[in-house]
Amino acid sequence: MAKLVGNAIFGQSGGPTSVINASAAGVITEALKTDCIPKIYGAANGIRGILEEKFYDMTQEDPEELELLKTTPSSALGSVRYKLADPDKDPTDYNRLLEVFKKYDIRYFFYNGGNDSMDTCNKVSKFMQKAGYDCRVIGVPKTIDNDLYATDHCPGYGSAAKYVATATMEIYHDARVYDTPLICIVEVMGRNAGWLTAATALASYKGCGPDLIYLPELVFDMDKFIEDVRKVYEKNNGKVLIAVSEGIKDKNGKYISEYGSDLAKEKDSFGHAQLGGTAQVLANIVKKEFNCKTRHIEFSLLQRCAAHWASATDVEEAFTAGQKAVQFAVEGHTDYMVAYERTVKDGKYFCEYKLVDLADVANTEKKLPLEWITEDGTGLKQEFIDYVLPLIQGESKPPIVDGLPRFAKLKKVLAAK
Amino acid sequence: MAKLVGNAIFGQSGGPTSVINASAAGVITEALKTDCIPKIYGAANGIRGILEEKFYDMTQEDPEELELLKTTPSSALGSVRYKLADPDKDPTDYNRLLEVFKKYDIRYFFYNGGNDSMDTCNKVSKFMQKAGYDCRVIGVPKTIDNDLYATDHCPGYGSAAKYVATATMEIYHDARVYDTPLICIVEVMGRNAGWLTAATALASYKGCGPDLIYLPELVFDMDKFIEDVRKVYEKNNGKVLIAVSEGIKDKNGKYISEYGSDLAKEKDSFGHAQLGGTAQVLANIVKKEFNCKTRHIEFSLLQRCAAHWASATDVEEAFTAGQKAVQFAVEGHTDYMVAYERTVKDGKYFCEYKLVDLADVANTEKKLPLEWITEDGTGLKQEFIDYVLPLIQGESKPPIVDGLPRFAKLKKVLAAK
Repeated sequence: MAKLVGNAIFGQSGGPTSVINASAAGVITEALKTDCIPKIYGAANGIRGILEEKFYDMTQEDPEELELLKTTPSSALGSVRYKLADPDKDPTDYNRLLEVFKKYDIRYFFYNGGNDSMDTCNKVSKFMQKAGYDCRVIGVPKTIDNDLYATDHCPGYGSAAKYVATATMEIYHDARVYDTPLICIVEVMGRNAGWLTAATALASYKGCGPDLIYLPELVFDMDKFIEDVRKVYEKNNGKVLIAVSEGIKDKNGKYISEYGSDLAKEKDSFGHAQLGGTAQVLANIVKKEFNCKTRHIEFSLLQRCAAHWASATDVEEAFTAGQKAVQFAVEGHTDYMVAYERTVKDGKYFCEYKLVDLADVANTEKKLPLEWITEDGTGLKQEFIDYVLPLIQGESKPPIVDGLPRFAKLKKVLAAK
Repeated sequence: MAKLVGNAIFGQSGGPTSVINASAAGVITEALKTDCIPKIYGAANGIRGILEEKFYDMTQEDPEELELLKTTPSSALGSVRYKLADPDKDPTDYNRLLEVFKKYDIRYFFYNGGNDSMDTCNKVSKFMQKAGYDCRVIGVPKTIDNDLYATDHCPGYGSAAKYVATATMEIYHDARVYDTPLICIVEVMGRNAGWLTAATALASYKGCGPDLIYLPELVFDMDKFIEDVRKVYEKNNGKVLIAVSEGIKDKNGKYISEYGSDLAKEKDSFGHAQLGGTAQVLANIVKKEFNCKTRHIEFSLLQRCAAHWASATDVEEAFTAGQKAVQFAVEGHTDYMVAYERTVKDGKYFCEYKLVDLADVANTEKKLPLEWITEDGTGLKQEFIDYVLPLIQGESKPPIVDGLPRFAKLKKVLAAK
């Protein structure tokens, strides 16, 4: 494969994670030391930054701050939820991208995100090929939802799982201190895939987790739920800890959050319902049913930005995924996403990096295998614990100044137009 | 002072903290090595455990598990919210306590809690004195609210402040990734004192914190609030981060949470309103006013049980406060609470331990000094930062097994009746 010399641009897209900046650090630092990439740009707010010609010259950043990106939560360059049109129907955005790529001699495009972002990546890649513009496009996965197809797991998931499991263990201890009944419901992110909610089973595995776990992979039945709660309530003197996914739905496909909440009425620009309030709705229902104190706790943004308690394994893998994206592209690959492959040697977990077709990843969701859910539908089997445990190992250590994490501060010097 | 030989009982009361078990570890391990205390009991659910003769023989516990209490959140023995009657009106409970104390030869009573618990402590102490029963009573402070009188700060506050500040820094990063407006409101515990909400100013001090902070020390004015938000909204392209105390009230003394929430209608057994929902109420109001996306995040139980990110300073001080309670009692002191005194030598912070009258502490609340609040009422001055910084130093290190904290598991062997 001929060596392709040209500039690179990197963008972050979709909901942030604790480690999406670790991938950014991987892409940027690797590009900076790659001869055939004279300049690496960081797109402000993903694809929109490219369309609007608003991107940062990453060669201007201090190496120390780029290193700090590894332990800085959220999307340092800004993110976006922007759905590109079908190029056959409306090529406006694509023509504009081509114009910008040509103007800045961009020959490498790295895009970090989830399903929707891989769809964007795929469409851009296909358009550039069709237009005969030589450009290598590699997607870098990211999502706390862990629902990307063709990768063993996703960067961001291990840290979110570690946080959710730890916080659930702590809540377990707090929620049972009084000698009076308390039904506590924690709500975990994950629109259609229960991977992250399932991570609360790690707390149960440690003897201090939820009694009942409800995943979006199964239909939620309110009557069964009440009976499930009643059994635990009677067995445990009224102490019940429940974990629910924000995305649980009844047999008619109606979100439980919609039962009482008006939050779900809004739609984001991808057409997904804005979820939230599931735990609150259920807490109100069990309060009426059991006439006892209830608490509903949403992990909200905390589960995707708690960099102070990220998984060191996740951080390292996310960083490496970024580096690999650059290396694969320089080697001549394009139109792929970097994916994780799990290998186990002598009982020890290893992560290897491979390429998977963007087209296969785009808009496909990987759900939790139903056979990992216990027969009663309210717990996880050992197979899931075995799957998730290696991903949460090690504690990421952001440098501490004044007792608080020191996060990266980028200069964000806009590239001259 | 004559040496008093007899058994000791220790109880935990009120809302848990990340370090209340560190004080338990201090009391228990110190009592175990004290000659004149043959047995140390742990009351199940505080004063109620004593009344019901339900307490654990702490000599039966493994020393390793007692050591782990230092990094285990919440109240390992169980807590209680139980208000003792005025002994002149109804001495039933006091007579029962005396009966139990005599039966088990309890000569040392250590009680760990906040204002209400110190009131309990005080009443028990005075009753025992009046009854001529020789018993030494020492209170150990505890509250994330930091509102106890006569102590520089309270065990539990430093850890809660460190968690709240860190989580706020992380939320700041997450809540500004999109190029669209977002008003994000975080809600912090603190019924009448704004100490913990003020800790979000640490995040602002680090350049990634709330634009606006509302404390219960000041009357909350909805019109001024909307105008405050508007100014930030216009200056920051619609990115606004707000921290509010759960306990903010309008000029008529009405909780803001009551504006839209029904949660505040309930009362707990101390007559305090059950708060919650303040951020949610305000998010709904600003959503209507600014017609933009909003988020409301309650730190809920997480802020008082996040032992994985406790302040090492707080843990050590809380442990020492427990040890000191035993030492002071053995020396002959009674009817006191252990308090912290801050000293600064060569610019370095030190914590010393003193005794303060229980009567002075009981039911008095220490509010944040008004002169530490900025003139516009929405921020904290450097004086507050200087006060709080030493309290959040160091990261507590719970032992990690399988990537998760290993918390103490007590046997809880009930004392033979």
